[in-house]
Amino acid sequence: MDDFQSQFTDVNTLGEFGLIDRLTNDITIQHSSTVKGIGDDAAVLKFGEDCLLISTDLMIEGIHFDLMYTPLKHLGYKAVIVNLSDIYAMNAEAYQITVSIAFSSKFSVEAIEELYKGIKEACRIYKIDLIGGDTTSSPKGLSISITALGRAKSKDICYRSGAKKGDIICISGDLGSAYLGLQILEREKQLYLSNPGIRPDLENQKYILERQLKPEARKDIVDYLRKADLVPTSMIDLSDGLASDLMHVCKASKVGAYVEESKIPINQESQLLAIKFQLDPITTALNGGEDYELLFTVDEKDLEKIRHMPSVYIIGEIVDQKDGITLHTTGGNIHPLKAQGWNHFTPTPPQKDN
Amino acid sequence: MDDFQSQFTDVNTLGEFGLIDRLTNDITIQHSSTVKGIGDDAAVLKFGEDCLLISTDLMIEGIHFDLMYTPLKHLGYKAVIVNLSDIYAMNAEAYQITVSIAFSSKFSVEAIEELYKGIKEACRIYKIDLIGGDTTSSPKGLSISITALGRAKSKDICYRSGAKKGDIICISGDLGSAYLGLQILEREKQLYLSNPGIRPDLENQKYILERQLKPEARKDIVDYLRKADLVPTSMIDLSDGLASDLMHVCKASKVGAYVEESKIPINQESQLLAIKFQLDPITTALNGGEDYELLFTVDEKDLEKIRHMPSVYIIGEIVDQKDGITLHTTGGNIHPLKAQGWNHFTPTPPQKDN
Repeated sequence: MDDFQSQFTDVNTLGEFGLIDRLTNDITIQHSSTVKGIGDDAAVLKFGEDCLLISTDLMIEGIHFDLMYTPLKHLGYKAVIVNLSDIYAMNAEAYQITVSIAFSSKFSVEAIEELYKGIKEACRIYKIDLIGGDTTSSPKGLSISITALGRAKSKDICYRSGAKKGDIICISGDLGSAYLGLQILEREKQLYLSNPGIRPDLENQKYILERQLKPEARKDIVDYLRKADLVPTSMIDLSDGLASDLMHVCKASKVGAYVEESKIPINQESQLLAIKFQLDPITTALNGGEDYELLFTVDEKDLEKIRHMPSVYIIGEIVDQKDGITLHTTGGNIHPLKAQGWNHFTPTPPQKDN
Repeated sequence: MDDFQSQFTDVNTLGEFGLIDRLTNDITIQHSSTVKGIGDDAAVLKFGEDCLLISTDLMIEGIHFDLMYTPLKHLGYKAVIVNLSDIYAMNAEAYQITVSIAFSSKFSVEAIEELYKGIKEACRIYKIDLIGGDTTSSPKGLSISITALGRAKSKDICYRSGAKKGDIICISGDLGSAYLGLQILEREKQLYLSNPGIRPDLENQKYILERQLKPEARKDIVDYLRKADLVPTSMIDLSDGLASDLMHVCKASKVGAYVEESKIPINQESQLLAIKFQLDPITTALNGGEDYELLFTVDEKDLEKIRHMPSVYIIGEIVDQKDGITLHTTGGNIHPLKAQGWNHFTPTPPQKDN
């Protein structure tokens, strides 16, 4: 036995971001071509005139998806989308992906083909070349590792670190539905497990279920921004939840922020459903995660450009770091914003309405 | 249940390469920046003057490694090496990697740090920037997905497809030891499982064990080739075994090949050990896999340049495709060369000497 095995610090005591900090805080960059390493939606490499963007995600059965209610084709589609979203969050174009999969003998050739149908469908719609990967077996379950490559001019790239006081905070769409979609699917799974004869009740919830099972990446926003000749001062994609992801931007930019509760867009169907689940719709929108909308900040002089952009919502403003990150409620109160985003090591679901 | 689940074709009926063909044969490339997609050691993207090389590997506990005899630090090191090897096999320089890991709660922070020590050690030695990745939990075991990025001038890149009749076939080092190292470790594991009190007998087998547990990638060969102003006509790294990997080159280049048995370098310790294990040393060298040496072909006019290059062995010649791929034995016989390389779906170990 090696010495290190005599010590045992549970990863839960650090959490995902704490562990990443501990593993990577001593990493130094050796090549001038590495413009940005760990710590943003994608890494940035200098390559002649342009920059190369690279982002990667590893999705594990039983952690990131449940095949009891996730069709393999949807899963393949989503696995591509979550990676493209990271490239778009840098204000870049995505061009290529690699796809690695590991799967156990319970998966047939037809099942893997179904997964690939979704992967190829996403590639077709987003004009992405599938350029390589790895295919191997696994003792148990399915793992999918996708790496996305994109490109941008250096001056167009939006990091998390560029937000400054006075900037306007924007998001590209309504929040919380993906999380609620997951709640529906989990509920129906539990009902099915206790009463296998009952057909799942998924009617009239197409929008919410699609937000969970077949999300889209906001390439259109990157296109709108380019047409408007507007480069956001910072950008991130909403994978962990608005509260958590806004905190990433504020931390990287050394600023504070306030968000107006009344300005956070929530789909009406999702409002009603949240209440049905005894969840506060705002808490769901702030902490739900997996919406894959873009959160970005623009200089106040660009207000007119952004005001009429399709599907862009202005939700708040960047302030001094000392003023913290706050939520201005509809009732006129000011609360510090807390991140309760998804942590794969210690999952913390949004709190119940109380 | 979806329709596709009513069909069940076992992946074993296709094998790894058959499955990849079936999944990817309809993929078309949409971007002119994609120079080479699926089908070589790395994908190649055009990027200004230079090309970007990208390669990725997914390693799964219980399939690619056994933590009972693989120290985590060695595993981290090897996981980087196998990816760098793919970049060097394109005759390119490797500069960056991303590292994604998924692990269960049995792994402590210290264990993951130990894995990262090996990853960082490989990065230090090969001058690689670790630029990103993903860290997540897994219901069971450890998975490591690494993507390596490299760079080369377009004219220097060596594909599998460039070998032509008359070219000299070279390899960069002795073969079969990595496979024999695995046999030792497996034997000691079985002995330990039946008699936990016995200490493993791993003395005097340092070279063979290191070839399995801590292989190196042949960056030095890429450097030698550059200094000699020599661009091989084709190149591949020996991960599946000489027979299997030579077949990949011959298939891609539409040529045949002959290999002289007497010219295949086998370490003396490995010769003796193979015999002890009742394995034919040549079969082990041809089919063992995981040696991570480079197999490359050079034009016959470059014979003088290659003859005195350190650690390069000339083992045969490229011939017409119709003449097949053959082994010229020491006894004067000619046998068709058969690939018995590792298949993760249907593992076929080298045949016993008989």
